Amino acid sequence: MSTTSPQERIPVALLGATGSVGQRFIELLADHPWFRLAAITASPRSAGKPYGKAARWMQASTLPDAVAKMEVLPTAPESASGCPLVFSALDSQAADLVELDFAAAGHMVVSNAKSYRMDPRVPLIVPEVNPNHLRLLESQPWAGGLATNPNCSTIGLMLALKPLEDAFGIEKVHVVTLQALSGAGVPGVPSLQAVDNVVPFIGGEEDKLESETGKILGRFDDGQIHHHSAVVSAHCNRVPVIDGHTLCVSVSLARPASPEDLFAAWNQYRGEPQRLDLPTAPAQPVHVLSQPDAPQPRLHRDLDGGMAATVGRLRPCPLLDYKFVTLSHNTLRGAAGGALLLAELALARGQIPGIEIPQEESLRMEGSDS
Amino acid sequence: MSTTSPQERIPVALLGATGSVGQRFIELLADHPWFRLAAITASPRSAGKPYGKAARWMQASTLPDAVAKMEVLPTAPESASGCPLVFSALDSQAADLVELDFAAAGHMVVSNAKSYRMDPRVPLIVPEVNPNHLRLLESQPWAGGLATNPNCSTIGLMLALKPLEDAFGIEKVHVVTLQALSGAGVPGVPSLQAVDNVVPFIGGEEDKLESETGKILGRFDDGQIHHHSAVVSAHCNRVPVIDGHTLCVSVSLARPASPEDLFAAWNQYRGEPQRLDLPTAPAQPVHVLSQPDAPQPRLHRDLDGGMAATVGRLRPCPLLDYKFVTLSHNTLRGAAGGALLLAELALARGQIPGIEIPQEESLRMEGSDS
Amino acid sequence: MSTTSPQERIPVALLGATGSVGQRFIELLADHPWFRLAAITASPRSAGKPYGKAARWMQASTLPDAVAKMEVLPTAPESASGCPLVFSALDSQAADLVELDFAAAGHMVVSNAKSYRMDPRVPLIVPEVNPNHLRLLESQPWAGGLATNPNCSTIGLMLALKPLEDAFGIEKVHVVTLQALSGAGVPGVPSLQAVDNVVPFIGGEEDKLESETGKILGRFDDGQIHHHSAVVSAHCNRVPVIDGHTLCVSVSLARPASPEDLFAAWNQYRGEPQRLDLPTAPAQPVHVLSQPDAPQPRLHRDLDGGMAATVGRLRPCPLLDYKFVTLSHNTLRGAAGGALLLAELALARGQIPGIEIPQEESLRMEGSDS
Amino acid sequence: MSTTSPQERIPVALLGATGSVGQRFIELLADHPWFRLAAITASPRSAGKPYGKAARWMQASTLPDAVAKMEVLPTAPESASGCPLVFSALDSQAADLVELDFAAAGHMVVSNAKSYRMDPRVPLIVPEVNPNHLRLLESQPWAGGLATNPNCSTIGLMLALKPLEDAFGIEKVHVVTLQALSGAGVPGVPSLQAVDNVVPFIGGEEDKLESETGKILGRFDDGQIHHHSAVVSAHCNRVPVIDGHTLCVSVSLARPASPEDLFAAWNQYRGEPQRLDLPTAPAQPVHVLSQPDAPQPRLHRDLDGGMAATVGRLRPCPLLDYKFVTLSHNTLRGAAGGALLLAELALARGQIPGIEIPQEESLRMEGSDS
Repeated sequence: MSTTSPQERIPVALLGATGSVGQRFIELLADHPWFRLAAITASPRSAGKPYGKAARWMQASTLPDAVAKMEVLPTAPESASGCPLVFSALDSQAADLVELDFAAAGHMVVSNAKSYRMDPRVPLIVPEVNPNHLRLLESQPWAGGLATNPNCSTIGLMLALKPLEDAFGIEKVHVVTLQALSGAGVPGVPSLQAVDNVVPFIGGEEDKLESETGKILGRFDDGQIHHHSAVVSAHCNRVPVIDGHTLCVSVSLARPASPEDLFAAWNQYRGEPQRLDLPTAPAQPVHVLSQPDAPQPRLHRDLDGGMAATVGRLRPCPLLDYKFVTLSHNTLRGAAGGALLLAELALARGQIPGIEIPQEESLRMEGSDS
Repeated sequence: MSTTSPQERIPVALLGATGSVGQRFIELLADHPWFRLAAITASPRSAGKPYGKAARWMQASTLPDAVAKMEVLPTAPESASGCPLVFSALDSQAADLVELDFAAAGHMVVSNAKSYRMDPRVPLIVPEVNPNHLRLLESQPWAGGLATNPNCSTIGLMLALKPLEDAFGIEKVHVVTLQALSGAGVPGVPSLQAVDNVVPFIGGEEDKLESETGKILGRFDDGQIHHHSAVVSAHCNRVPVIDGHTLCVSVSLARPASPEDLFAAWNQYRGEPQRLDLPTAPAQPVHVLSQPDAPQPRLHRDLDGGMAATVGRLRPCPLLDYKFVTLSHNTLRGAAGGALLLAELALARGQIPGIEIPQEESLRMEGSDS
Repeated sequence: MSTTSPQERIPVALLGATGSVGQRFIELLADHPWFRLAAITASPRSAGKPYGKAARWMQASTLPDAVAKMEVLPTAPESASGCPLVFSALDSQAADLVELDFAAAGHMVVSNAKSYRMDPRVPLIVPEVNPNHLRLLESQPWAGGLATNPNCSTIGLMLALKPLEDAFGIEKVHVVTLQALSGAGVPGVPSLQAVDNVVPFIGGEEDKLESETGKILGRFDDGQIHHHSAVVSAHCNRVPVIDGHTLCVSVSLARPASPEDLFAAWNQYRGEPQRLDLPTAPAQPVHVLSQPDAPQPRLHRDLDGGMAATVGRLRPCPLLDYKFVTLSHNTLRGAAGGALLLAELALARGQIPGIEIPQEESLRMEGSDS
Repeated sequence: MSTTSPQERIPVALLGATGSVGQRFIELLADHPWFRLAAITASPRSAGKPYGKAARWMQASTLPDAVAKMEVLPTAPESASGCPLVFSALDSQAADLVELDFAAAGHMVVSNAKSYRMDPRVPLIVPEVNPNHLRLLESQPWAGGLATNPNCSTIGLMLALKPLEDAFGIEKVHVVTLQALSGAGVPGVPSLQAVDNVVPFIGGEEDKLESETGKILGRFDDGQIHHHSAVVSAHCNRVPVIDGHTLCVSVSLARPASPEDLFAAWNQYRGEPQRLDLPTAPAQPVHVLSQPDAPQPRLHRDLDGGMAATVGRLRPCPLLDYKFVTLSHNTLRGAAGGALLLAELALARGQIPGIEIPQEESLRMEGSDS
């Protein structure tokens, strides 16, 4: 696909590489045209071992041999020397402690952890939705930088809401999630809770949906984010699904809109990642499905490389204005894929000082003509 | 448990006996102290066969031998001769055609089908919630009568809302359901849709929740039901759970109430079935669970014989006043058990002309003393 | 059911009470006519807490209030003082260390752990199959005693094979198991391995099936067990089932037998627990099911109180003589229920010195007449 | 991937296109370098409708627009006029009636149905295992021809056994299957049998495994197949897995072999599809996995495009010589993919009269040089 040779790609480090989000990063970085996985870190228990021994690989793809042989390093800035870009798949406890150290040491950190999402200095980015929030990077106090990926459920919700916000204004949002097991990793949810059962509770998740929305839909002005005033009520459930979060959403809009208006808003929506044709960007951020019982996680989570949100079942809501269902892949779009797209966006916008998009050979040759 | 001899029990007929709701009726009637299964009917395909051959028994209990040998009869009033009481587990297509014939032929029909639920002449009953709606039976145009059991999700919702309605008034309800597979019977949901998946759609179900609520919470006056004005918005999902519907509910109340007020309303709630100590009544209609992740279908659906609703996770709702989770057993409380309790209630209130509660021997003997 | 008053029941201790087998013991002891739960122990982490706080109750029944309030004690003989009988639901690591201490301190230990199953001094008992192996208790070197319950899969296999062994002799056994998740407890199998998946491996399980069979079917003679010579090959799989192990069995018999002979052997089989009418004994140890697709775990695991094995699909095996399917409940018959039945058997045979079966009041009164 | 233009590809017809195997054919034919889907047929109920309306698409991929618009034709030879090659995804009832008509009408039929698998005139092919059985085509009585794909479980078993047969000889095989739900299609297995359950029975499946093995491993000589003498005993179970059949296999070998010998036989095995580099051929027919709990369906079914068998857990069998686990994808390798590979093989061997492999442009141009 890409003609960039591996040596020319940007070396990146991956923190927390053994967990399930870490494994998705490894899958996605395996053939990434711009990035090359150069260092992997994990907890002290794993450090020093080859990755193939340290991690219990749980992906349907095969662990690349080269990664299996890489030594797992301790999660400290020294481990990432030579890597201007660092992806963090750390859990929040670990992230609390070390992510700022990496930023202070000059790395650009793109984190999937919740630790600094609501920090006013740190952009919380869905690349199609609020790319200009990346401008917060310009005034961060660290030698490097820190940008964060929202919660896996928030991301899908934002993709579905942003076209409506732009066209009609969002005032109220009621969302009930049916979330996949992979969000909890391994060991994660015990199987005795996941067969013939649902668990109507996920610790901290409702707060994230309710608070992150305001920041992401907020306005960047005067060097800061002014949160959006939409009121959000969230209820989160765990269901026996491997991948793919399904959200039942009701919304109130600021301006009247017909169902056709909503369909048009979703279908026509394109963001900066699409305009820049970023490597991990879906062709279309939101796909409207017309079957009466769509979207369904097993059938639709992988659409557009697992990077798009799907929307279906639009109908009037007796309480708010409209209700609909949206689905997105929680470990691709909602975690590793979203973070990669974020890094691609920052790079393409020139907001990661000192590194540039690797040029493909043909382009470079053309360039040398002039 | 009961000392009523089987011969003294009221002979009842069961329409649509081979399906999954029919099977639950058979289980519950096996040891019922007041009722004796005397006739079973099914579609022409099954008629004439012994039940054990006609039905594909899918319950965890053993099919009683006596029932296995009963001949399945055609679904026509003649089949129920001698049975003053008739339970209908028909699907609505079949119920549309024949239930009124049974009522016209002098039978008291207690139906689980949706066909006549919204007919203004027909009571739609949750025994704890609106027992006095049974007074509609007094003015029905048929020689017998017809009373109906609500939709399986509606029943659980009503049990959870009625204590709040009585204490604080219900104004708005937003409900998202996670419904069990048994609601769709056999063959029902294909297994390829039920493993690693949810289906965010159940045909007609949202309408039922939204419309039945108004009737059930309505007021009986002047011989008719005046519907309640609460606005209900429902979103229904099918999840990979065998039994037990989980509902995520948000409500607006007419009068202010603290969480403690709501707990007290639920805990103290008792209805006519409890006061009359009906055989199928749960000791307590609503159980409040205190674990942070309760209720869960596999753990809590069978509480109080599968006839109670459980409630948990009460917390403020940023949009309406409160949100909580409620769970109830869809084929016990939500279908066969609910219909049995309805019939017990009608009988105990003396609203089934010509039949009376069978007296236990000891009571009868005492009676004969006087 | 029983008229024995709780105070007259034998006080028993339960070691390892918080795990999933421990929870099943608590359920079964709640109404046991002979035994009264008097002490519960768990790991140091739980000791000192009330059971309701220490354990994460995962059963569909409600945790009895009285047990919820009991203090969890450390797992040491002092904790069981006053309890002549001790049930062990410890994992084998813990059991290795302490079970002999309890036996040495004078307690009769009935253990579900694998630690001492193959110790030649310790009986390994399926009550219907080898009750006379309890005579090993007579020559044990401890002040108390130790008897063990086999592996959960072995128990079901033994119930199905023993009638054939008695009637025709067993020579070779090939068994492939499809085992339930509850066997691994909580956290146990991660849910990401239990949805849309099977795991064709359970550590140590095949060895247990292959070795325990020889001991259980062995002959007690000269104060020791002479192992049976049957050759067993086992393959163990974990499948997404909550409870109930399904076994695909092929057998070679020593003497020719028709299918009808096998059915008769199973149907007529009764063991000492049935003859003694022990409280936890199933009415019939083996139930033959005639449906072409039976037994199935969800439908048949609870038959006869979850204490029977079911058998179905008998047909000739092109390699050995016959093949069939057998199913039994792994945490009832295969763990807590089996251990209780073992203790009842030992007690009824008079093989637990110093304690006797509590007499029911009516019997005692009759007795006092004489 | 391919530079063959669609117009130059061989037009093929697909019979029984709406079912789940038919849908897999459509997926695989969407980008096939040699074949172009030119006609689709289904039952009279679907005929005349556009495919997008007639079929309930249940694949995780998107139904190609061009196929959605194709008119479904009746399943009769006229519908396939212009298509020298016909794939049949018919169920056996339909296949019984019409497949020979297509063959008689001059089409080469490659069928996934069981109807003619055991017909001595018809080759039953696993392309890596018995390619020379295609020579039966030379003496078939029809104007066209008929070749068949084995049962989905048989195919995986054959891939695992053939390297052992070639190296050491197979004498006895005991196989217990844990089969995926997709094998039964839609509606297929009711979901109430697929959650918290296994079904230890699949109608006709054991016979297929036991009989097809002898034919496939047989020897082509004198224009006919001489069946192999290996004795096979099969037991088939349905488990809650979407795709991927897991087989627990025990084998007796004719000649002694160490575990290393077996690993070498599997790892080195390559068949004619690999030597011919056929488009649908896996790089390696058998992959040996070293993890102790592999293979698992969710993790390993898609390996090598879902066209390889994986093998793991090799260990001695106390009854036969060795036991191991093998897994293969039942609707890719075991159905549509296997049939495509069969057609590619027949074409590459020149055994489909009148049609040739389409040449890629570059090759054709080279060709035109000479």
